[in-house]
Amino acid sequence: MARAWHLKSRPEAMPAPENFELKEFDPGAMGDGMIRVKNSWLTVDPYMRGRMRDVKSYVPPFQIDAPLEGGAIGEVIESQADGFAVGDMVNHGAGWRDEAVIDASTAQKLPELGVPAQSFLGYLGMPGMTAYFGLLEIGQAKEGDTVFVSGAAGAVGSTVIQIAKAKGMKAIGSAGGADKCEWVKSLGADDCIDYKSDGDLLHKMMDAMPNGLDVYFDNVGGEHLDCAFAVANPGARFAECGMISGYNSTDPMEFRYIMNLIGKGIMMKGFIVTQFMARAAEFYQDMGAMVADGKLESQETVHDGIESQVDAFIGLFTGGNTGKMLVKV
Amino acid sequence: MARAWHLKSRPEAMPAPENFELKEFDPGAMGDGMIRVKNSWLTVDPYMRGRMRDVKSYVPPFQIDAPLEGGAIGEVIESQADGFAVGDMVNHGAGWRDEAVIDASTAQKLPELGVPAQSFLGYLGMPGMTAYFGLLEIGQAKEGDTVFVSGAAGAVGSTVIQIAKAKGMKAIGSAGGADKCEWVKSLGADDCIDYKSDGDLLHKMMDAMPNGLDVYFDNVGGEHLDCAFAVANPGARFAECGMISGYNSTDPMEFRYIMNLIGKGIMMKGFIVTQFMARAAEFYQDMGAMVADGKLESQETVHDGIESQVDAFIGLFTGGNTGKMLVKV
Repeated sequence: MARAWHLKSRPEAMPAPENFELKEFDPGAMGDGMIRVKNSWLTVDPYMRGRMRDVKSYVPPFQIDAPLEGGAIGEVIESQADGFAVGDMVNHGAGWRDEAVIDASTAQKLPELGVPAQSFLGYLGMPGMTAYFGLLEIGQAKEGDTVFVSGAAGAVGSTVIQIAKAKGMKAIGSAGGADKCEWVKSLGADDCIDYKSDGDLLHKMMDAMPNGLDVYFDNVGGEHLDCAFAVANPGARFAECGMISGYNSTDPMEFRYIMNLIGKGIMMKGFIVTQFMARAAEFYQDMGAMVADGKLESQETVHDGIESQVDAFIGLFTGGNTGKMLVKV
Repeated sequence: MARAWHLKSRPEAMPAPENFELKEFDPGAMGDGMIRVKNSWLTVDPYMRGRMRDVKSYVPPFQIDAPLEGGAIGEVIESQADGFAVGDMVNHGAGWRDEAVIDASTAQKLPELGVPAQSFLGYLGMPGMTAYFGLLEIGQAKEGDTVFVSGAAGAVGSTVIQIAKAKGMKAIGSAGGADKCEWVKSLGADDCIDYKSDGDLLHKMMDAMPNGLDVYFDNVGGEHLDCAFAVANPGARFAECGMISGYNSTDPMEFRYIMNLIGKGIMMKGFIVTQFMARAAEFYQDMGAMVADGKLESQETVHDGIESQVDAFIGLFTGGNTGKMLVKV
């Protein structure tokens, strides 16, 4: 019998195990154009926290007592769809479960890039596209720019650092803890700020970027964003990808330096990766070339077994991952 | 003997009369290319507050014990500059004084638009250009858009309302007090929120804009800006012109709804009118046509005599003006 994680109740602040329940469920009937997939890898991503709120947003909220959804990589074990054969590996959106029956048009066969399958949940998947288009399209980052990336040890941030270096930019990261910072530097970052160490963030950022920042790739919001207003150069661009510092908080965010937005002519723009889905081919071509040149590497924090997925998810908000957080079914 | 307002000390929070001193001063010697101007009109504008801080910004800070500067309209009373004759009316940057000796290249002769001279300190001057390019270039406002304007009874805001209506947009203002709101509506605004009346701002904005806002022209920052994140439609543009609510405060601004920036793909961009100075001809042509069509009107709050300029300036932050705040020398 298939199993899926269900949302039992909506988290008020930090999600807790009791908000979730792993239950047997019926994946549904096969039919014309459908495939049955045995999931091998499940992803947890910070944006999922937003779908646990009962508010209108760019994606509908998760429903109470219904299976959760999210990215997954799996193997086709039954097919009634043209172009999909038993044994094909696919990327699809029916995660948080060990088996899925889905319309094949919502699944993508994995491109042949000579990388492990789970990479398509990470730097070659949604987080990678978020990094790529966020940096280059929303942030309009170009060679020679100083790019500051918060959450630099995460799936998106670590990819931003590597793309920035591959494209001739100066890349400064921020992460929580010396180990994570060492890893971010090992990816090529010119520097990485440990925001958990002693001292105030503003001065750490000013020291790391004495000539200011041209692009801020924001995964964190809050104090990082506030200090970025202070450190930004005139004409800086802020690619607003996430504000994880606020996802589990009901307090307002406080900004002391936001008025710099005006005098410095800063441009801030929020974005969602789905707006770039039509440009996936361009992404795979450019990223594939970087992979072939050895310019991109990946690190994963892997939890074993579907039973561990809630722990993995909560770990996203408590510094539990270096690189991509994954669940191996 | 000429007189000029000097900065005696830097205001900590709200500026007070003791921060300023009106003193006799020497306007300097005439020379090749110079003109002597007898000022008729002096402007006070919120941005001047920023120059009273000792911080690096897009314009250098005012110096202690030196004459203040700012826009002025005056009559040339002595000229050693080609193209400038005694009796010419000019717009220049040596305000806060009754007489100025300046390089003629820093002065502009007033365009012939059949409007009173002081209009070139208001809707046909710097505040007008701020409104025009902020709305159309930074905010990318187009016909059919719903435009929300805070500080709508001010010099910039009241011009934004009128340009928006002349260009076929829906225009909603916000101002402090019923009288100001009535005036904003008399300019053509579809509605105007009295933010000082009972009730919370968010619900007032939701009621006034049931279909959301496409462009927010921000003069105020703070709670107005925060609520705009909540009311914005996907793809909304925020033209960040000013944040007057924070100019005299040392408290951080609090935002509860800023995370909407991401999901809604909101674009926020700060700007300074000087970046559009090279496009003044385009501005005068388009605005001149609106004036000729009777689509633009102006209101002024006039203080009499240079002695009153500090009161006029402080009044900008206490709701003292409807329309453009001016000093008639």
